[in-house]
Amino acid sequence: MTTAQSTAPLAIVILAAGKGTRMKSDLHKVLHPIAGRPMLEHLLASAAELMPSRQVVVVGSGREQLERQLGTRASLAVQEPQLGTGHAVQQSEAALAGFAGDVLILYGDVPFVSAATMRLMLDRLHAADAPEVVVLGFTPADPLQYGRVIADDTGRIARMVEHKDASEAERACRLCNSGLMAARSDRLFDLLGKVGNTNAQGEYYLVDVVNIANAEGGHCAVVVTPDSDEVAGINSRAELAEAEARWQARRRVRAMADGATLIAPETVWFAWDTVLGRDVTIEPNVWFGPGVVVADSVTIRGFSHIEGARLAEGVEVGPYARLRPGAVLEAGAKIGNFVEVKNATLGPGAKANHLTYLGDAEVGAGANIGAGTITCNYDGYFKHKTVIGERAFIGSNSALIAPVRIGADSIVAAGSAVSRDVGDGELRLVRAEQLVKPGWADRFHDTMKRKKADRKASEGKR
Amino acid sequence: MTTAQSTAPLAIVILAAGKGTRMKSDLHKVLHPIAGRPMLEHLLASAAELMPSRQVVVVGSGREQLERQLGTRASLAVQEPQLGTGHAVQQSEAALAGFAGDVLILYGDVPFVSAATMRLMLDRLHAADAPEVVVLGFTPADPLQYGRVIADDTGRIARMVEHKDASEAERACRLCNSGLMAARSDRLFDLLGKVGNTNAQGEYYLVDVVNIANAEGGHCAVVVTPDSDEVAGINSRAELAEAEARWQARRRVRAMADGATLIAPETVWFAWDTVLGRDVTIEPNVWFGPGVVVADSVTIRGFSHIEGARLAEGVEVGPYARLRPGAVLEAGAKIGNFVEVKNATLGPGAKANHLTYLGDAEVGAGANIGAGTITCNYDGYFKHKTVIGERAFIGSNSALIAPVRIGADSIVAAGSAVSRDVGDGELRLVRAEQLVKPGWADRFHDTMKRKKADRKASEGKR
Amino acid sequence: MTTAQSTAPLAIVILAAGKGTRMKSDLHKVLHPIAGRPMLEHLLASAAELMPSRQVVVVGSGREQLERQLGTRASLAVQEPQLGTGHAVQQSEAALAGFAGDVLILYGDVPFVSAATMRLMLDRLHAADAPEVVVLGFTPADPLQYGRVIADDTGRIARMVEHKDASEAERACRLCNSGLMAARSDRLFDLLGKVGNTNAQGEYYLVDVVNIANAEGGHCAVVVTPDSDEVAGINSRAELAEAEARWQARRRVRAMADGATLIAPETVWFAWDTVLGRDVTIEPNVWFGPGVVVADSVTIRGFSHIEGARLAEGVEVGPYARLRPGAVLEAGAKIGNFVEVKNATLGPGAKANHLTYLGDAEVGAGANIGAGTITCNYDGYFKHKTVIGERAFIGSNSALIAPVRIGADSIVAAGSAVSRDVGDGELRLVRAEQLVKPGWADRFHDTMKRKKADRKASEGKR
Repeated sequence: MTTAQSTAPLAIVILAAGKGTRMKSDLHKVLHPIAGRPMLEHLLASAAELMPSRQVVVVGSGREQLERQLGTRASLAVQEPQLGTGHAVQQSEAALAGFAGDVLILYGDVPFVSAATMRLMLDRLHAADAPEVVVLGFTPADPLQYGRVIADDTGRIARMVEHKDASEAERACRLCNSGLMAARSDRLFDLLGKVGNTNAQGEYYLVDVVNIANAEGGHCAVVVTPDSDEVAGINSRAELAEAEARWQARRRVRAMADGATLIAPETVWFAWDTVLGRDVTIEPNVWFGPGVVVADSVTIRGFSHIEGARLAEGVEVGPYARLRPGAVLEAGAKIGNFVEVKNATLGPGAKANHLTYLGDAEVGAGANIGAGTITCNYDGYFKHKTVIGERAFIGSNSALIAPVRIGADSIVAAGSAVSRDVGDGELRLVRAEQLVKPGWADRFHDTMKRKKADRKASEGKR
Repeated sequence: MTTAQSTAPLAIVILAAGKGTRMKSDLHKVLHPIAGRPMLEHLLASAAELMPSRQVVVVGSGREQLERQLGTRASLAVQEPQLGTGHAVQQSEAALAGFAGDVLILYGDVPFVSAATMRLMLDRLHAADAPEVVVLGFTPADPLQYGRVIADDTGRIARMVEHKDASEAERACRLCNSGLMAARSDRLFDLLGKVGNTNAQGEYYLVDVVNIANAEGGHCAVVVTPDSDEVAGINSRAELAEAEARWQARRRVRAMADGATLIAPETVWFAWDTVLGRDVTIEPNVWFGPGVVVADSVTIRGFSHIEGARLAEGVEVGPYARLRPGAVLEAGAKIGNFVEVKNATLGPGAKANHLTYLGDAEVGAGANIGAGTITCNYDGYFKHKTVIGERAFIGSNSALIAPVRIGADSIVAAGSAVSRDVGDGELRLVRAEQLVKPGWADRFHDTMKRKKADRKASEGKR
Repeated sequence: MTTAQSTAPLAIVILAAGKGTRMKSDLHKVLHPIAGRPMLEHLLASAAELMPSRQVVVVGSGREQLERQLGTRASLAVQEPQLGTGHAVQQSEAALAGFAGDVLILYGDVPFVSAATMRLMLDRLHAADAPEVVVLGFTPADPLQYGRVIADDTGRIARMVEHKDASEAERACRLCNSGLMAARSDRLFDLLGKVGNTNAQGEYYLVDVVNIANAEGGHCAVVVTPDSDEVAGINSRAELAEAEARWQARRRVRAMADGATLIAPETVWFAWDTVLGRDVTIEPNVWFGPGVVVADSVTIRGFSHIEGARLAEGVEVGPYARLRPGAVLEAGAKIGNFVEVKNATLGPGAKANHLTYLGDAEVGAGANIGAGTITCNYDGYFKHKTVIGERAFIGSNSALIAPVRIGADSIVAAGSAVSRDVGDGELRLVRAEQLVKPGWADRFHDTMKRKKADRKASEGKR
């Protein structure tokens, strides 16, 4: 069948009124994240590639959560009570008042349908034979209890049949109904008005529009997704984990194809928006939260946890680097083990190698932050900033009490708590006298050993 | 075959005299842990559901280790030398003196037989046809070299046959002998007395009691476990790892079904007694040791290591949280990265976000423990306690030298070493003068650069 | 066919001139590491077991990288332009001037061919029937597009055929050409001189020497590797990851067989030279870089990262132990969480349990390093040493400013910055007065709360 690219206006209707009871969660099912992004957002991002003029999300309970998530990006239509998928789509009619064009029906818990597949459906709707409804079919390895699509070689649908109503011959057909559908708006709502609920569940099923259209002498078509995984629904935490695993597996393959070494790919987790350069090396066990950009020739050692950070060319971090939002590491900067960086920029070649907290800070090029350095950025009420000059040397175990500026080429002596600015090329030494008590430790040991023996003895007597 | 629930007294005999040489370990094979618990304890816990009146463990070498583990919970019978499984069970006779009832024979290295399966065996023993011996059979995917159970459809055993002695027809039978057995005590020891050792190994085989009972005109029955995995024996570290993997896989499925999000289930390790609430989120790479209770709506970020800790509702920990025994986090408390908590309670909403050690401490509600804070709880001889009041603010890089009390609403300035109590609403500032040496750093840099150049030059000359 | 052990001199020719474009890397393909060692070095190590008298590596681009890696261990022959494998081997002729003996042709990106397989090829070359060329064949599960080796039961080759030129019958043959070859040097270069390039690619193919030898009335033989994995080529980062995974899987099996408990074997990564004792326990998520030796009865807890370290009997490290090159832990020493050790020795029973950096240090037996201790080993120009005596007690949050010696049985008080030596049995207390400001915190809280309220109010007005 020849297809034509659709140019009609497009409305997206996303069904998200299911109770999601199997998730056992107070969070709305479609807001559970995969790769750090709510599943609904994955779906909206794909749909956005088709530039829809309207978007309606049909909700039941948990409406407020969806309102908060979506803002003005989509209309909400409320389905209450919930009387089936056909009924759900009907609830979008008011929100689509004044709209005339194509309607694409998606599911909030089927988040990984690609834009290409959506386009396939719409193009089929506008093909020469002009079907009234287009259904997305898939061919799973095991068709299980799915409803079947009985169609001819051109994709013209003879009948949609539920598994329980299917004959042996129909069950042998492996083409299943994904539930996704496209139709012109006027005809869709016309057909929906004719769907009845005389079935065991007393529900209005969306799928019935196909049989009704057929009965009225029209015809409907099926297009088949090339990738059955994309129509997998997510109804439980186990299915959520499986969807996450599939997403991650693909992303890892892409990272390697693009020139990153993943020593143990199965132990690296990316976020939906992670950007990776070439000749990046990632040791086992690295976690990327959203908002990370990694340039070429970066090395990320094991057990690193990275969110909202920019790593410029040649940067080395980890093991045990914890980069939080706003961490910016310029070319050749180095973050070592047990170091946390939050809302802080390290200039080119700057280093913080051990046991350090850099929060709300600017560190100049080539500065060296000693082990155990803490920026005291919080006074219990406000956050304050620490500015460290180029090539400054912060001695180990120092506390930099913000707001404070440490000058270029200056030195802060180890163990200092610095609360006043340090000038360029200045030494700041905050250190008390070293009191020496010769023999004291020996006497202490004698006393304590005696005490310990006494305690043991008295415990023995009880 | 109708079965009747057994009400006879029960004795458990656990064989644990194998040398376990393939483990290459000084630790007794049955004490190797799975999910943080010795495999023998897993087995005892299942057996305990049947409320046995006697428990005997038959041991060979490593007896002292088992004595230490078991205390008075079971009698030990020594098998020395080790002349086969039949001989091993015979060694339990003295420990069972005066006992009359059912005997269930288990194996210390087959630790995951369920109580339900044990009950199945005992119920079959008391069924209407009153078999003399009940054998637990299993049907592995690949029957390999296992001994076969030749039985009719009612489970009545015609013959037990070793793989090497089996005919082609017998080998085609996939019902295998697990080795587990139930019998009445009097008849069991009677039959065991008739078992001979005229075989290649010169050993007394337990399985022979079935053939002897049959030969004497009695009859024996087989019941089949629904889960072949539960009779898997553990004879090597590889099999130990496989058993651990199977256990963890099941536990993860259960955690998700109960409403926990495991982003990467295969990287979360539970202990045998971990308790998890609903809407708990666990990032990849989290380890639970024994004794952990996690309430609803808790978030555990990656790379966390948690043992013996209680996490109340809404708590957030990690990444890199290390919670050790006695850590108690009350509602909404927060433990951040590179923070260790041991034998310490954090009140509601208290926070310790970075690079901190809290040991032997009580932290009041809403207190804020700054980065790099250390409770100095140990003087080399005794442990001492730190008590921090509600809403207290501990500045970064402070050392709290226990025993010490920090008052409510008080402030400890950054970089302080506090060895005396701080009153409520008091500021404690432990800080020396900041010595400023303008230009010192510049001169230092000049000197050092010269030194470095000199050193290089002199190295060049060699 | 009877074979004879070869005693002829041996030259190894390693082809490494491929562009490796699919790696998308500036690093030469054969230098990409597996198990912490460049793949070329794995191959050279296996070849070294055959004690070759010559080694030639044929390179194209990236020659300097190989020169740096190999030094004088092998001759480099440059292939420029790259006109096929036959042409590549020809480029080694000059480097082999004066050599007469066997030549074994290997591939830098096929790094895991075992010495046993190499020997199999050479022994076949010297078998009674004296083939002119020996080819290494393999029988992959799926022969795909590989060239086929058409041979009789004795291994005598009838024909080498490219997949595209193969008949149906030839394609049904599953014996494939690995590309590895052995031949006597004189005959090899003689045959190579006769190889033409009249094919689609215009290249000189090494495999043609077999057909030429046959055509000239000689004969060639194939030997078959028992392990198809060993001839897997590595052409992409994905294949690199697969090779790493295969290597690790084998190493883990060996570790368990040798008596180590790996709770989750798939999360432990070894280096090529890791040495592990017996009764070693490794929790999930442990990374070994090169140069680690672990003695018996060592416990390594989760999330540990270990390179270049020696752990003596009974040592315990982790979780979150970071051991860097030069870390030496003597019997029973303990390294706890968030502790980094670099170029430092801990004597028997010494402990550093929390949040510590020990660099360039010697710690005596039984010493106790408190939480938050930092050795300040670097002054921005040079590294200096810290020496801590036996049984010394370093209080928490101390900075030891190297070079410095802390005496035996001495005590450094918590929070001290120690820049001068401490004598044996001496107490060093570096602490300023504790300034108390009663009511100050309360007044501070009042002020700040007001400020916060003001700020909010002014934000509201905007």
